[in-house]
Amino acid sequence: MSNRYAIILAAGQGTRMKSKLYKVLHPVCGKPMVQHVIDQVKSLDINEIVTIVGHGAEKVKEQLGEVSQYALQAEQLGTAHAVQQAGDMLADKEGVTIVVCGDTPLIKGETMEALFKHHEETSAKATILTARAEDPTGYGRIVRNSEGFVEKIVEHKDANEQERSINEINTGTYCFDNKMLFEAIQNVSNDNVQGEYYLPDVIEILKNQGEIVSAYVTDNFAETLGVNDRVALAQAERTMKNRINEYHMRNGVSIIDPDNTYIGPDVKVGQDTVIFPGTTLSGATVIGSDCQIGPNTEISNCEIGNNTVIRQSAAFDSKIGSEVNIGPFAHIRPDSDIHDEVKIGNFVEIKKAVFGKGSKASHLSYIGDAEVGADVNIGCGSITVNYDGKNKFLTKIEDGVFIGCNSNLVAPVTIGKGAYVAAGSTITEDVPGEALALARARQVNKEDYVGKMNVKK
Amino acid sequence: MSNRYAIILAAGQGTRMKSKLYKVLHPVCGKPMVQHVIDQVKSLDINEIVTIVGHGAEKVKEQLGEVSQYALQAEQLGTAHAVQQAGDMLADKEGVTIVVCGDTPLIKGETMEALFKHHEETSAKATILTARAEDPTGYGRIVRNSEGFVEKIVEHKDANEQERSINEINTGTYCFDNKMLFEAIQNVSNDNVQGEYYLPDVIEILKNQGEIVSAYVTDNFAETLGVNDRVALAQAERTMKNRINEYHMRNGVSIIDPDNTYIGPDVKVGQDTVIFPGTTLSGATVIGSDCQIGPNTEISNCEIGNNTVIRQSAAFDSKIGSEVNIGPFAHIRPDSDIHDEVKIGNFVEIKKAVFGKGSKASHLSYIGDAEVGADVNIGCGSITVNYDGKNKFLTKIEDGVFIGCNSNLVAPVTIGKGAYVAAGSTITEDVPGEALALARARQVNKEDYVGKMNVKK
Amino acid sequence: MSNRYAIILAAGQGTRMKSKLYKVLHPVCGKPMVQHVIDQVKSLDINEIVTIVGHGAEKVKEQLGEVSQYALQAEQLGTAHAVQQAGDMLADKEGVTIVVCGDTPLIKGETMEALFKHHEETSAKATILTARAEDPTGYGRIVRNSEGFVEKIVEHKDANEQERSINEINTGTYCFDNKMLFEAIQNVSNDNVQGEYYLPDVIEILKNQGEIVSAYVTDNFAETLGVNDRVALAQAERTMKNRINEYHMRNGVSIIDPDNTYIGPDVKVGQDTVIFPGTTLSGATVIGSDCQIGPNTEISNCEIGNNTVIRQSAAFDSKIGSEVNIGPFAHIRPDSDIHDEVKIGNFVEIKKAVFGKGSKASHLSYIGDAEVGADVNIGCGSITVNYDGKNKFLTKIEDGVFIGCNSNLVAPVTIGKGAYVAAGSTITEDVPGEALALARARQVNKEDYVGKMNVKK
Repeated sequence: MSNRYAIILAAGQGTRMKSKLYKVLHPVCGKPMVQHVIDQVKSLDINEIVTIVGHGAEKVKEQLGEVSQYALQAEQLGTAHAVQQAGDMLADKEGVTIVVCGDTPLIKGETMEALFKHHEETSAKATILTARAEDPTGYGRIVRNSEGFVEKIVEHKDANEQERSINEINTGTYCFDNKMLFEAIQNVSNDNVQGEYYLPDVIEILKNQGEIVSAYVTDNFAETLGVNDRVALAQAERTMKNRINEYHMRNGVSIIDPDNTYIGPDVKVGQDTVIFPGTTLSGATVIGSDCQIGPNTEISNCEIGNNTVIRQSAAFDSKIGSEVNIGPFAHIRPDSDIHDEVKIGNFVEIKKAVFGKGSKASHLSYIGDAEVGADVNIGCGSITVNYDGKNKFLTKIEDGVFIGCNSNLVAPVTIGKGAYVAAGSTITEDVPGEALALARARQVNKEDYVGKMNVKK
Repeated sequence: MSNRYAIILAAGQGTRMKSKLYKVLHPVCGKPMVQHVIDQVKSLDINEIVTIVGHGAEKVKEQLGEVSQYALQAEQLGTAHAVQQAGDMLADKEGVTIVVCGDTPLIKGETMEALFKHHEETSAKATILTARAEDPTGYGRIVRNSEGFVEKIVEHKDANEQERSINEINTGTYCFDNKMLFEAIQNVSNDNVQGEYYLPDVIEILKNQGEIVSAYVTDNFAETLGVNDRVALAQAERTMKNRINEYHMRNGVSIIDPDNTYIGPDVKVGQDTVIFPGTTLSGATVIGSDCQIGPNTEISNCEIGNNTVIRQSAAFDSKIGSEVNIGPFAHIRPDSDIHDEVKIGNFVEIKKAVFGKGSKASHLSYIGDAEVGADVNIGCGSITVNYDGKNKFLTKIEDGVFIGCNSNLVAPVTIGKGAYVAAGSTITEDVPGEALALARARQVNKEDYVGKMNVKK
Repeated sequence: MSNRYAIILAAGQGTRMKSKLYKVLHPVCGKPMVQHVIDQVKSLDINEIVTIVGHGAEKVKEQLGEVSQYALQAEQLGTAHAVQQAGDMLADKEGVTIVVCGDTPLIKGETMEALFKHHEETSAKATILTARAEDPTGYGRIVRNSEGFVEKIVEHKDANEQERSINEINTGTYCFDNKMLFEAIQNVSNDNVQGEYYLPDVIEILKNQGEIVSAYVTDNFAETLGVNDRVALAQAERTMKNRINEYHMRNGVSIIDPDNTYIGPDVKVGQDTVIFPGTTLSGATVIGSDCQIGPNTEISNCEIGNNTVIRQSAAFDSKIGSEVNIGPFAHIRPDSDIHDEVKIGNFVEIKKAVFGKGSKASHLSYIGDAEVGADVNIGCGSITVNYDGKNKFLTKIEDGVFIGCNSNLVAPVTIGKGAYVAAGSTITEDVPGEALALARARQVNKEDYVGKMNVKK
């Protein structure tokens, strides 16, 4: 196999996106478009990757990091001009170079690999990735010669009737003999209406040199979509969503409605887990097997065990064990660590808290900045008072504690092992193990009072 | 340009809707079908609009208001009979009249304008709005003569095989020379199986008088959908939804899943705002730029600033500023006014309350009938006790106040500037500025009590 | 009409499902696939039903119950072998037998009835249910003779080019002359690559005996889908969902987005009820007329009256009356009985409680194990303290009671008719009717304290 290089075109502003965000950074299924492209390129055996940056160069470099080298295209003078910026790094190297646009987030590594292979198996010096479009209007058409090689690319506006009837179109991805690419690119002119240097002109230059140009037809037209506005962005999202969801379903995950389930490209889900509609799983989320997730649930960057149920809830950046039951309408905020067999019920918020095995907070509670032991029962309406207006403090609730309803635990405070806090108490001092803590007034019944009173209740 | 008139047919009951609600009042994207039609008609330069009402006449008039005149069709004897009811208002006027059905909510003003223009540019006395149907079964077919004008309309059931193969169909929208319309309509007979007076018969009458009848083909068949049952209603909703969402995407709004995002026709959304799935935006809602809305959020009649985040929440008839963070699982009820940089967290309900800049109610609170100043911190579980069983009272919380967790503020009550309310207090009297208010019992720990006790916690 | 029998093939493991759950038990719209098949078979006039079980035999029998007899196929040696297991029960009976796969959940009773009828009207001894596939790749093709009867079934892999162009395919459902089926099945061989006994071979055997084999073409190809993996399972779910939703829409229910509304096959919904997106209705749920349900609401096994509104909420196994208003963000847990005109507001959980007519729990409350009378007002943040760590107790709240905010009612406890509980009280003793109950500390204001203090709030 020859040396392989990749050039990724990521310099454009993307005017039709109507956005402050640079085009290639717009996310598809939660991941920037250019990151999708890089991730696929990385799956190939590539010697060097050069990303051409321009608009938002710093942001793009920050996103992609060290996996790529960068060449700056200070002015956007066309795709050939963009490629030329990689010349300092690549021009004198032997090998094959793939050129991919950073706004084609759907293209797969295996398609690029097939393009490389096809290129390497022919004597062609350039190979175009093409596809058959149902409606080729607007695309450059591939005119082939009698041997099946490429005669020329004709832009839609320049095509005659016969050429317009061709449905094989140029996807904008190419393989080139690297040295020939950089030589030919010197000769591309900007003598056209837009005054730009166009990469497809390299094809014509090579043809004029008597070289062979080939075309590899992928049978997945949808994969080659280039995103130029937010309508296309939504279309890319839909295609990527279907691809991801089909992957999980084939792996043994039940997705009740794949059209209405949003799973990020890096999420892992175990077998026999069922995902109900309206659910978003994102980031580095890992879900075990036999779980039930959703409906209408949002989980980001969580690691979740097996046999866990999470319904109509939101969970972020936390660990959640096995046989845990969460929701409906619960909120797990970052840095929580929820052990096995825990129950977090409705209208409960957990933040930066450890929850020991088998503990429960079943209703209307806020447990934040807390260490909760095992087999603790936190009564309805109980609150860790972790903030005094200036600082945040820790609450410790040891194993087997029972916290009565509507209690306040004013941190820093420790409730000792097996202790009991009476309902309606505001606890400001530590409670020893096995103690009963009370902090409430005695009840008084004023009989036959309601008729007379004008009380504040 | 000639004088222009519009007649809107809105008298039908709509039996197949199986509804107590009159057909044309069924909403599409939250707006009654006939209102969609009127809104589009209003976008044209029309001298007079006459809506023919019958079933639910009062409700239809109440919906549409003074933008239209009304003619009552007391008995539903067919579309020609319906048009005839407008005779008193229009019969003797020079000009061109468009007749549109009130159950075609998707038809656009620009299509009607094109129909008018086409009519005015020919010598035709009637022009039919037609479309090409993929499956024309059931529709009236347009038979054209050698000059391209209309020879006749043939109903599906009367069509021979050749006529059935015609895919140009009558959409039921027409332009007529106004005077000729009302003259011809006198001669329409009800000599048919249904015993009704049909408007298409006017075409035949004009033809018999030797007049030219033209047809204008819109290339958007979907737009001409007539809604006769709730399956078609859902289809109209889908088409309208796609149209609205595409409009916003082209304007620079990111909609993650346009199939699963429901935006009313009058909603405005700023550039670079992202809308997550399962979100409904309705009424006169205006959302600024750079916001994040959803998933699973419902917003109606709210005015929202820039850079605001609202997740898994519901908000109604309120003002919400910039850099505000709401949810997940918050509920903003009507007449709230939430200033910039406010945080309304999970399980918080706000009703008829002002929230000053930078104030927070982060968890499990109800703030109703309240004026909250700037930089206030409302602790978890705090409640404005605004109702005593008979009346509602106001709570005032001045700037910089700190309300401890699980507190009750029994209205009417004022918490003075910079004051502090201790956690677990029920506040029944005003608190002076900078004061600390407490209303709770001291804590007692009964050691080694848990073993013995049989307490009520 | 001849005697009719049904054999349902439900013995397979379904390797491609990648599941611990046996294939035919995977649910479609909440109901196991084989149950859908049985429910449709039951709608016909059938003398005996025999279900062939194997993998998960006990679970399948438990699911289907006594509506069917069962024959065990201990080893899975092919479809003919499966049918053969029913021989002891059926082999010597006169009549017609339908053979249906347990993994075809979409097939309708009326299609099976049409197959029976077609069979009975011809002299055929076997009739194949066929359909026209747009893309027949992979299916067995139906080769018909000059009389229109079946000449043979050719598997895709064995088909020549001409046969592959046939788009009439074998759906895998058949009617047979019962006795002939069991005789012929003796002669099926397993002399093939898989070493299995295939049911379609019976067709060839009958043909060789000189019998006529017929085919009945259903025009609904989608209905014949066999589910072999979870991608097909999701496809079956989508088709069934559309079918169910269309049924309700034609019945007068408005479904804003039928693609995003999930209604179980046994749910009933009254006229003029509107269902908003993201809503799941399951089990034996019955909803009255003029209700508004959703968005993002989950209701299972509830009986709901008329004119009730439930938004962004979850409700399970409960009775809910008319003119009730629930949500957003409320949770009705099992065994609740909510009478007419009740309001259950945001962040309220109801569990195993009766709620009398006109009572309200508008915010942030937990009412569990309780009997609430009529016209009761439960203040925000009020809690029935039903659990002491060992047992659960009952709370009784009689008619016309007013419970102040953030109160605890420590069960067992009774609040008498018309009584008043002051806000912030923890009630541990019964409150007589018309009494005022207080259990809270007096307020103290420490003036100018905030500057000095370092308090716990």
